[in-house]
Amino acid sequence: MRIEVFFTPPEGYPTSLQDATVAVVDVVRATTSMVEALAHGARAVFPVVATEDAVRLAVSLGREDTLLCGERRGEKVEGFDLGNSPREYGPDVVADKRLVWSTTNGTRAFAAAGEAGRVVAAAFTNLSACAREVADTEHVVVQCAGRLGRFALEDALCAGYLVNRLVESRDAVGETRPELDDAARAARALAQAVEPTQAFLASTEGGAKLVEIGLGEDLAVCARVDHHDVVPELMDQALTLPARG
Amino acid sequence: MRIEVFFTPPEGYPTSLQDATVAVVDVVRATTSMVEALAHGARAVFPVVATEDAVRLAVSLGREDTLLCGERRGEKVEGFDLGNSPREYGPDVVADKRLVWSTTNGTRAFAAAGEAGRVVAAAFTNLSACAREVADTEHVVVQCAGRLGRFALEDALCAGYLVNRLVESRDAVGETRPELDDAARAARALAQAVEPTQAFLASTEGGAKLVEIGLGEDLAVCARVDHHDVVPELMDQALTLPARG
Repeated sequence: MRIEVFFTPPEGYPTSLQDATVAVVDVVRATTSMVEALAHGARAVFPVVATEDAVRLAVSLGREDTLLCGERRGEKVEGFDLGNSPREYGPDVVADKRLVWSTTNGTRAFAAAGEAGRVVAAAFTNLSACAREVADTEHVVVQCAGRLGRFALEDALCAGYLVNRLVESRDAVGETRPELDDAARAARALAQAVEPTQAFLASTEGGAKLVEIGLGEDLAVCARVDHHDVVPELMDQALTLPARG
Repeated sequence: MRIEVFFTPPEGYPTSLQDATVAVVDVVRATTSMVEALAHGARAVFPVVATEDAVRLAVSLGREDTLLCGERRGEKVEGFDLGNSPREYGPDVVADKRLVWSTTNGTRAFAAAGEAGRVVAAAFTNLSACAREVADTEHVVVQCAGRLGRFALEDALCAGYLVNRLVESRDAVGETRPELDDAARAARALAQAVEPTQAFLASTEGGAKLVEIGLGEDLAVCARVDHHDVVPELMDQALTLPARG
């Protein structure tokens, strides 16, 4: 196994991702919230970069069972049904709904990864489930959303935890360790030094901004390691939970 | 003091760098080699992005006391006088020469940082001298060269060591700690876990490529922490050693 980490969405990937599995990570908050929504019974999540495209898609899917979700500057987009807070995605709100979702960083990361053979959504909340899901893959790419094109500490930390899980699971059965690129090694060093607590998330640049606008409680949800046993997978533009065999 | 780290040259900086000091880091090998050259008596180093521009500048400066330096794919550029190996820059070769220098990653990082109020060249070889030089600055930016637009572990490690030196020097005199951005915190965690040995540098993606083309001995020079007490500073397109007061 070969693991590469990208701390921000690249202009283009240096090699083809046709045979790769890409795990998109946007801990604060897109992938955390999408995991909540799907674990709570949403039918599908459609990540869309532009808010206008999100509105168009919601209309074409049928507004009656589709919710418009997402944020700009951390706040719900005007006219949308829901923001980007994981606490908004309870079963009573999302069960059987289609969610069209647009955020500042997370949905861009899905767009960048779109060319890959397989794309999944990862967060602390579904860490072990993701690690198990990609464990037999030859080439794993962890694509962090970052923040406005820059390095985001919480995403790098989550990438490091995912790398660690994959290294440990190989160690446990005496298999060859995954080959790590420079960024994967740095993420791993970070994961070995830091616990993903709510307080730690609040100390990051993105977390601090969230606290500033009164949404700091979201971080308690973002920090719940392995709270859900689901792995959203991108198929035909939508993240869904594949039926388990 | 506020410290920001950029792991790769950005398209543009999010805030003005007019009042900032930027430390450009390209451990393997541009800034290491430039520090060697200037410590060994070179008069000035002109970082230039394109090799054709380097040739033109060398001609206009006067070919008799100007050397063309740099690499593509790690190897000396055809027709150039010297490559990018720190071992080529002995006093007998470079004393009183002007060096026009073009490399794949390092000179791009200088170009990106060009708008800053002040730009210096940093490597492990002049780490403490750099830390002392920027210690009284309000806004420090560490600009890693990276590798082909991607994260480079050795540059991130050097950035982390520089951040650590600045934190420690404040701690030593009981001053407020510098404010670190997300990337500076990640670099620091890396520096607290790893020693910059020749073997470690050889294990990085850039270092391994160098070993592959038979230049692994360069890494012994790149790993000499605090070997030189000089800080190259960019003035009018050229790095020089400012006269010490």
